[in-house]
Amino acid sequence: MKNVAVFGAGRIGRIHAGNVAALPGVSLKFVCDPVAASANELAAQLGAKVSTPEAALADASIDAVVIASPTDTHSDLIHRAAAAGKHIFCEKPVDLSVPRAIECAAAVKAAGVACMIGFQRRFDPTFAEAQARLARGEIGVPEMLVVTSRDPGAPPAQYLKGSGGIFRDMLIHDFDIFRWILCSDIGDGGDAADTMTANGSVLVDPEIAKVGDIDCSVVTIRTKKGRLCQINTSRRAAYGYDQRFEVLGSKGLLQCGNHRPTEVVQLDGNHVMTDKPEHFFLQRYREAYRLEVAHFFDCLQGARPFRTGIADGVEAQKLADAATQSWQAGGKVMQL
Amino acid sequence: MKNVAVFGAGRIGRIHAGNVAALPGVSLKFVCDPVAASANELAAQLGAKVSTPEAALADASIDAVVIASPTDTHSDLIHRAAAAGKHIFCEKPVDLSVPRAIECAAAVKAAGVACMIGFQRRFDPTFAEAQARLARGEIGVPEMLVVTSRDPGAPPAQYLKGSGGIFRDMLIHDFDIFRWILCSDIGDGGDAADTMTANGSVLVDPEIAKVGDIDCSVVTIRTKKGRLCQINTSRRAAYGYDQRFEVLGSKGLLQCGNHRPTEVVQLDGNHVMTDKPEHFFLQRYREAYRLEVAHFFDCLQGARPFRTGIADGVEAQKLADAATQSWQAGGKVMQL
Amino acid sequence: MKNVAVFGAGRIGRIHAGNVAALPGVSLKFVCDPVAASANELAAQLGAKVSTPEAALADASIDAVVIASPTDTHSDLIHRAAAAGKHIFCEKPVDLSVPRAIECAAAVKAAGVACMIGFQRRFDPTFAEAQARLARGEIGVPEMLVVTSRDPGAPPAQYLKGSGGIFRDMLIHDFDIFRWILCSDIGDGGDAADTMTANGSVLVDPEIAKVGDIDCSVVTIRTKKGRLCQINTSRRAAYGYDQRFEVLGSKGLLQCGNHRPTEVVQLDGNHVMTDKPEHFFLQRYREAYRLEVAHFFDCLQGARPFRTGIADGVEAQKLADAATQSWQAGGKVMQL
Amino acid sequence: MKNVAVFGAGRIGRIHAGNVAALPGVSLKFVCDPVAASANELAAQLGAKVSTPEAALADASIDAVVIASPTDTHSDLIHRAAAAGKHIFCEKPVDLSVPRAIECAAAVKAAGVACMIGFQRRFDPTFAEAQARLARGEIGVPEMLVVTSRDPGAPPAQYLKGSGGIFRDMLIHDFDIFRWILCSDIGDGGDAADTMTANGSVLVDPEIAKVGDIDCSVVTIRTKKGRLCQINTSRRAAYGYDQRFEVLGSKGLLQCGNHRPTEVVQLDGNHVMTDKPEHFFLQRYREAYRLEVAHFFDCLQGARPFRTGIADGVEAQKLADAATQSWQAGGKVMQL
Repeated sequence: MKNVAVFGAGRIGRIHAGNVAALPGVSLKFVCDPVAASANELAAQLGAKVSTPEAALADASIDAVVIASPTDTHSDLIHRAAAAGKHIFCEKPVDLSVPRAIECAAAVKAAGVACMIGFQRRFDPTFAEAQARLARGEIGVPEMLVVTSRDPGAPPAQYLKGSGGIFRDMLIHDFDIFRWILCSDIGDGGDAADTMTANGSVLVDPEIAKVGDIDCSVVTIRTKKGRLCQINTSRRAAYGYDQRFEVLGSKGLLQCGNHRPTEVVQLDGNHVMTDKPEHFFLQRYREAYRLEVAHFFDCLQGARPFRTGIADGVEAQKLADAATQSWQAGGKVMQL
Repeated sequence: MKNVAVFGAGRIGRIHAGNVAALPGVSLKFVCDPVAASANELAAQLGAKVSTPEAALADASIDAVVIASPTDTHSDLIHRAAAAGKHIFCEKPVDLSVPRAIECAAAVKAAGVACMIGFQRRFDPTFAEAQARLARGEIGVPEMLVVTSRDPGAPPAQYLKGSGGIFRDMLIHDFDIFRWILCSDIGDGGDAADTMTANGSVLVDPEIAKVGDIDCSVVTIRTKKGRLCQINTSRRAAYGYDQRFEVLGSKGLLQCGNHRPTEVVQLDGNHVMTDKPEHFFLQRYREAYRLEVAHFFDCLQGARPFRTGIADGVEAQKLADAATQSWQAGGKVMQL
Repeated sequence: MKNVAVFGAGRIGRIHAGNVAALPGVSLKFVCDPVAASANELAAQLGAKVSTPEAALADASIDAVVIASPTDTHSDLIHRAAAAGKHIFCEKPVDLSVPRAIECAAAVKAAGVACMIGFQRRFDPTFAEAQARLARGEIGVPEMLVVTSRDPGAPPAQYLKGSGGIFRDMLIHDFDIFRWILCSDIGDGGDAADTMTANGSVLVDPEIAKVGDIDCSVVTIRTKKGRLCQINTSRRAAYGYDQRFEVLGSKGLLQCGNHRPTEVVQLDGNHVMTDKPEHFFLQRYREAYRLEVAHFFDCLQGARPFRTGIADGVEAQKLADAATQSWQAGGKVMQL
Repeated sequence: MKNVAVFGAGRIGRIHAGNVAALPGVSLKFVCDPVAASANELAAQLGAKVSTPEAALADASIDAVVIASPTDTHSDLIHRAAAAGKHIFCEKPVDLSVPRAIECAAAVKAAGVACMIGFQRRFDPTFAEAQARLARGEIGVPEMLVVTSRDPGAPPAQYLKGSGGIFRDMLIHDFDIFRWILCSDIGDGGDAADTMTANGSVLVDPEIAKVGDIDCSVVTIRTKKGRLCQINTSRRAAYGYDQRFEVLGSKGLLQCGNHRPTEVVQLDGNHVMTDKPEHFFLQRYREAYRLEVAHFFDCLQGARPFRTGIADGVEAQKLADAATQSWQAGGKVMQL
């Protein structure tokens, strides 16, 4: 039995805590959150106890921690958990500062603990199946990747103020998809980003311009082997959460479509109508969140390698920095 | 907190027990199965105790029972549970004999307990959404229903020997769909079957003929209002579990497609390929099984009406009998 | 160069005449229609001359005739064309009376001319591709056929008065689909209808009941080999012309979907929307009409066998009669 | 009756000539091609005469010419046809040199003749329907455009040598789509390209690198209003001709899918399979080619405005030049 403490009882903390509690062979022991009401409610619901990070990390029975607290607490908690010898599952990002993220990676390595980063899209059934087929060579060598990533609506500009900007806040997941799909070593030695060009606009909410951010972006990455990636994002898709990618290979194409709540088709005098995509990330990635936490504990047991590690968090962050720089400077960033 | 005993630790019993155990406000207290190993394993996995129907029904703390034991035990357990004042969730069928099923319904009524029948298709997200839209009048008045219901492969002929035949064993679910979609009162007074014509063949496995059964069937039902229903079934669909229906209304059509594991589309030199349907009922109806048990306990709490009752079990059974009779006699059965 | 006379300058005559005129190696010489204005307009548009059946059949330069005149003129024109040694392309039906249709077939045979019947669905690109794959064995042995055939709206009841009833007027095409898909000899010796059960209702327009007809029907055919066919039809589909079939084989399923004008998908706050099906038969079968006439003249040149012959017209008519009888008598018609 | 001369009896000339010949009110009078055999065959097939550009332009009865000859003859023929007062339908491009294309535009203007450029994609039923809905405001204000444009296979590198490079040879159509979809004045004053960034690789055929070209490209265009466009192209798609775009607006999304030959879906033990896209441009754009020529002659009659003019040819060419420059210099091209 693995004993676990979850840090953070907010929206994403509740999801991870619930998934942890439902896993056979895993026990959710502590829930920690400075907002006592949140911690109490979540702990009561799942049969866990309320604690503090200090106490939880000092508890010898705890094997692993799940970090789902605000972004600016991640690197500190990683350092402390690593020092305490606890395995770590940490929500993205490691840290908005690449140097601090690198320090976290070093601390994790020194401590010899596992540290998986919550890039849940790698566990989405559709995305994971596409990657598996690509890795099996079903469409030959990958050549081009087109990623579409659109939120149903923009958050308030004030929220975005502390987010690090669209490339660090929103595209970080897309940069991880790029690395996973175009750069993983699938028997070909892998690949890596070589140049990055980013551009963007404020088309959704003019307030977002006032906090120095954009709400639509287009990114182009060229790899060292000449593979090409285009990412398009918007903070607003009137029709729901739009999460797709397609990868062109020398022998074919893999397309990942959106998920939808039901398979009803309605035909009437005006329309032939199917369901809109799942509304937002909590719906679309419900299964992915469940699977990534299960994967984390599976890997802790042994044989299987972790699908993500802290290095993936650092590398995605570097790409987000490069995109931000390209957008601000208006040019291509070379030799990533 | 509602305390529950589950009778039957086989394939479907394990699903119901797991779903019961995961419900907030519900406690799985006892698992009962004459096969001790099955009962022990399931109870241990879900933190319940092993018991017997006698003991469980005698336990005053038990509020409800889930009957997932073999078909020939259903009516006896319903009688005993009703007599003990326990609410009942029972897998289909109530009983292979219509008269015995009617007696069960009478006993349930006399005892004043709830008795829901496990027609899980009414809880499938796709089917339920279609029914809800129909009930809201989105396609006008229902006129025709076409039901496609195909298993991925035929069970051994020996298994089918005691099944009551294809109409009672397999089409019972389709007859319930017919009643739910074409006969529910959606503000129009409802409707009912008037005539039934069934036909069939042995095209899959000649052994099935030897036990007096068929493996493909076609059924036509005409309602008292003249609505028309066609059902087509086969014990074998090489491409997986095929579960669809479409209902034509005066203002449009609702089609219910199959579910598939992922939304990957693969295009190569030979194909444009999507996923096959979910493999079989445990996959396709995983969510439906979860939702029907949650619904049962929701309804026990109060306000909402049960989506199925023991009368639905009896009526579906009558239609199965009529279909069997039509097939055997080679003619139409009138005045159902 | 083949010289052709077209009889009938109405809706379907204009289509055939236009397709004939566009064929290389074929010359549309005469257009015949008792309504002089129609004949004149069509002839002028296509560079042909106006004539009469008598004159056209007496003209030694005419090789073939296309009969697209009213139903009650077909058998007479077939007899006269055959007697004159002209090859014949005739719109369905051969005749509303089966005995008269059989006499036509005898006359055609005696004269040694070709006589193709306009079952244009056999030339629809989707249906023809499905049949070709079935014939190549891609889904194994055919077992079940489900045909959906719905018009966008009912014609006036008065028009239906002389139509012979829904089974002869509308389902004749579906009966031909049944024969083509389930009964063609694809290396298995072929098959034939054995029993027929038809049922129906008036749900669209009560006036249709007054002329002794129905507007919705369901038909079940069982073949001598035990294959099963279900046909469902309605005179009204609010969403357009609905023309589909699916055939289940021992190794898979072939589904034929509707055609739609464009491949636009529109997603907005309310819908994910694709095009409605092509509006009616002139749109859906535009390509089929072109291809069947081209096929007729190809076959006249030599090698290839005609995809339909007058016997197909007779056999479909027999099935329509059996369906009518089954519906009127309320029972199964045996030994077709 | 409009009399027409077609210059060029190659692949595309034959298509245009056939479409011209089939138009009511239009007469194909002359076919001109230095390859006598081609000219003779095409003229014979369509009932036209063989001629030379000199003679055809000198013939006072000729109203319009269709220029479908090799690219390097276009500007000369435009000048001569304009000087002769003939209306012009010219295949893209006007000329590989932007200055020469501008001179052609001036000559056309001075002569007061019509000059439509063969951007046939604007007549594709799917693309045209999407543009019409966008223009009607069905998805609000356009914000982002993603264009996918892939050929089934690369031509020989030697052919590409004289093509002007991938941006001028292949993306010229995509640049026109960009202008049509993101820049047309749909009541909002229209828009125009502001910056252009292009990148590319040789991933398909190393020989293509030797002639100084690339076979995969990614392009980003930002408009003056901040709208964003991404184009991805490849000379090779193993699954056929891939021609799609999607445009995101403030209120929704319009997606244009590929066309496919039939609507058959095949399900078997291995696959759920639909048709591959139409094989190449002659199949996919068959209807578009027909419609654009019909549109040209409709517009010559009067009221309706031409959907493309020579200015569209010039502007697309400028974008192709900018993309070439961006790719070669490795940076963004500003103030287009």
